[in-house]
Amino acid sequence: MPPFLSDLQVPSVADASLSAQLQHLLDNKTKPLGSLGRLESLAHQLGLIQATRAPTLQQPQMLVCAGDHGLAARGVSAYPSDVTWQMVENFLAGGAAVSVLSRQHGIALTVADCGVRHDFAPRPGLAMCKVAPGTADSLMGPAMTEAECEQAVRNGLQLVKGLPGNALLIGEMGIGNTSAASLLLSRLAGLDVAKVTGAGTGLDDEGIRRKTEVLRAVLAQHPDATTPWQALQAFGGFEIATLVGAVWQAAAERRVVVVDGFIASSAVLVASRLQPAVLGYCVFAHRSGERGHARMLEALDAQPLLDMGLRLGEGSGAALAWPMLASACAILNEMASFESAGVSQKSE
Amino acid sequence: MPPFLSDLQVPSVADASLSAQLQHLLDNKTKPLGSLGRLESLAHQLGLIQATRAPTLQQPQMLVCAGDHGLAARGVSAYPSDVTWQMVENFLAGGAAVSVLSRQHGIALTVADCGVRHDFAPRPGLAMCKVAPGTADSLMGPAMTEAECEQAVRNGLQLVKGLPGNALLIGEMGIGNTSAASLLLSRLAGLDVAKVTGAGTGLDDEGIRRKTEVLRAVLAQHPDATTPWQALQAFGGFEIATLVGAVWQAAAERRVVVVDGFIASSAVLVASRLQPAVLGYCVFAHRSGERGHARMLEALDAQPLLDMGLRLGEGSGAALAWPMLASACAILNEMASFESAGVSQKSE
Repeated sequence: MPPFLSDLQVPSVADASLSAQLQHLLDNKTKPLGSLGRLESLAHQLGLIQATRAPTLQQPQMLVCAGDHGLAARGVSAYPSDVTWQMVENFLAGGAAVSVLSRQHGIALTVADCGVRHDFAPRPGLAMCKVAPGTADSLMGPAMTEAECEQAVRNGLQLVKGLPGNALLIGEMGIGNTSAASLLLSRLAGLDVAKVTGAGTGLDDEGIRRKTEVLRAVLAQHPDATTPWQALQAFGGFEIATLVGAVWQAAAERRVVVVDGFIASSAVLVASRLQPAVLGYCVFAHRSGERGHARMLEALDAQPLLDMGLRLGEGSGAALAWPMLASACAILNEMASFESAGVSQKSE
Repeated sequence: MPPFLSDLQVPSVADASLSAQLQHLLDNKTKPLGSLGRLESLAHQLGLIQATRAPTLQQPQMLVCAGDHGLAARGVSAYPSDVTWQMVENFLAGGAAVSVLSRQHGIALTVADCGVRHDFAPRPGLAMCKVAPGTADSLMGPAMTEAECEQAVRNGLQLVKGLPGNALLIGEMGIGNTSAASLLLSRLAGLDVAKVTGAGTGLDDEGIRRKTEVLRAVLAQHPDATTPWQALQAFGGFEIATLVGAVWQAAAERRVVVVDGFIASSAVLVASRLQPAVLGYCVFAHRSGERGHARMLEALDAQPLLDMGLRLGEGSGAALAWPMLASACAILNEMASFESAGVSQKSE
């Protein structure tokens, strides 16, 4: 682990006493034991994250990190790289899915230029933290130098430090970035790249076959990139590295982190392989339709909230799932107990 | 079908021209084709229900129908029958899961006494439409007479007529009512009752075995109750029959119907076997943890939104899923198109 990260402590969420208290509270709400299913385990986790029996959510922040990928020139995506900056403009103009869903739920949206191949005019809601205009082609060498990678991670730390509230939702944009996520997953979880490479924005079967061959060659180019830190440099991208820092800082501050899809999860994979305690802060919003995400969630031992065939990224799935977190808090804070409501218990 | 129902026309949602227009709209939003998964099919359905390319949701109404079951005396539930009225009080006092989740989302809550074995004091939010204080024991004879069943269905029609808005969420309460739902499903879908009988509020394996034997005996008691209308009378209950009327009226008025779990779905099963067009108006909120619900959804050819191991009923799952419907509308109404946002299309 790089020293600048290990200096930033991430406390464990584990607390046996609080955990028992939360379980007791949930078990005594007016409902059959465990009958709110995944919502109960979510409520339990939110209590542990905030170290309280009465978790609340304040000023949720959606952070969408964007960056371009040198590998995109190898034809690994169905869309041209220009779509990265065009979509950043769309996020900021309010017309993208993540813009619409964040607005619906009162989630503040920050878009970060982490390394887009385009010069943006500064404006509210756009964080300027470009490391370089796109990563290098990972088929020829590392996507990032170590200095670039460190800079991107540091940017993520700083971005979150500057955001209010106690919940961070993470999303991303970057043509070519399902390739980076597949490479990270394949290398860090030891999975055959063919099993974790999918359609991304919409490749057909032949396109996926070609993409898989490119990714296999990239892996062969970097046989020594075996640690999370080395793999992140080798495969990129700037948006993923920035998200690694963002997740780390959020966890260090005990914020809830709501993780979107395949690429956002790859940032959590890297962060959690460097520091397992960050996982306790992560709520995985959904299992995406992108091949590889189910394997990614298994590698993270994560149980997602939704399974709706989403495969858009941007943070759209995180925003869609957001009200569930508020529901989980409301269950803990507002539901009556059997005793307070005068309801008979189970007859045994 | 009883004549008083067949007089109330339910229009089909099918409209090939509008369907094509909705698909075109969705396909041109700034996202890869189909990448919002189930949210897109939901948006499409809401457009068809409202016969518009710009569906909106107004004044959503949660209707929780409550009733007691004569069969409960046979030990088919882990809780005593008194829990039915106690939970009605809890709904109205604001402490139940459905109260909390409805409040979170601004959903108005109406609780209907359709046949609870208790005298309630009248108050706002409580609809008094008790047919009788609990159904008869279906092991001895029909749970309801035909006149009682018709009255309960008519009550459902009237209840919805009196509610504002264009969306109805349906939930229920009634100790013993998973038994009624299992009986209806077994008979109307021709499934072995052992395959569709579960823990309800929390029976153990031995309890489920005993419940299954009771239900098998009830089915044997009513060999001629083969039509939906006969089966509803034979197996009950008042809350299910009232929901049949509520769903029918809502569909006749082109309201969106958000269906909660196993018991609410059984009302839709009956209504849709009488009049298949009602299914077009139904959004199934979730696949519950109650054994039998997955089979029920298959029998209805329904794809639920959530799969979170919920098995509480009350309408809690419908309320939890509600924000997804608003998200689906927002996608259609607020997302930019590739053209309007100046985003490049897929390269082919």
